[in-house]
Amino acid sequence: MPLRSDWSHDSCPIARSLDVVGDPWVVLVLREAFEGATRFEQFRAIGVADPVLSRRLAAMVEAGLLRRSPYVAGARTRHEYLLTDAGRDLLPVVHALARWGERHRPSPGGQLVVVHEACGQVTESADTCTWCQVELTPAEVSWRLPGHPQQLLPLAR
Amino acid sequence: MPLRSDWSHDSCPIARSLDVVGDPWVVLVLREAFEGATRFEQFRAIGVADPVLSRRLAAMVEAGLLRRSPYVAGARTRHEYLLTDAGRDLLPVVHALARWGERHRPSPGGQLVVVHEACGQVTESADTCTWCQVELTPAEVSWRLPGHPQQLLPLAR
Repeated sequence: MPLRSDWSHDSCPIARSLDVVGDPWVVLVLREAFEGATRFEQFRAIGVADPVLSRRLAAMVEAGLLRRSPYVAGARTRHEYLLTDAGRDLLPVVHALARWGERHRPSPGGQLVVVHEACGQVTESADTCTWCQVELTPAEVSWRLPGHPQQLLPLAR
Repeated sequence: MPLRSDWSHDSCPIARSLDVVGDPWVVLVLREAFEGATRFEQFRAIGVADPVLSRRLAAMVEAGLLRRSPYVAGARTRHEYLLTDAGRDLLPVVHALARWGERHRPSPGGQLVVVHEACGQVTESADTCTWCQVELTPAEVSWRLPGHPQQLLPLAR
């Protein structure tokens, strides 16, 4: 990973995680992946230069957050990037960041609302449904995105 | 903040948070602050060069995560860095990172265990006691650190 230090064998689990996700572009790629992006062109939405995006995607594949899967585009075979279980398990990190942003950097553009589909309730916790106390996984979570309060987007599963 | 992009006014709350905490040194400074560090010398434990640490502490004060407070050291007045409410509210981000690290980058050196003091139980959630379902705040949380399973460290409050 293109980080300043190697924390992959640090005694602290926080540091070991930062070795993988201690980079804002990686977290933004994860956000797009949860929202359904799988292709290079779609991940460009995070607003990064192509070479940087390319390096981050490769690093995330190497770290086991994404896996590359071939698809045919016209006469060519290209690759898309799919969340692995390890990537999906970063949903609480993304939710915790979203919640802090809503609380301490509020925006007039609206909120990111996390809905637990099984019960249909909005949940405040990063990882546990506030209502039914089950662990939240992408397969059971939808987001209402800022500026689109009427749309419920099921996360990639 | 010494980041590559300005996300402070992004429409996405995840990006707005990353504008502040999308830097691994900032997260490691927070970890030390939760463990009770307040002084520059103590924050050196994260293993960063002094000028980098100095810039990160200044950025965290500017972002409202820490506040500077004077103290007398011998003949000199120096400053310590204390968590603000906004800094304390990042505990779920730190917990979510710790949990992912334990799950996907396990270490033989032992785990970081989160204990909710009010009920005395180990909690698995980043922000909510698994047992009594109340929101976790640093004032009610202790950590057992890797390699020190017998010690219960109350977080800075």
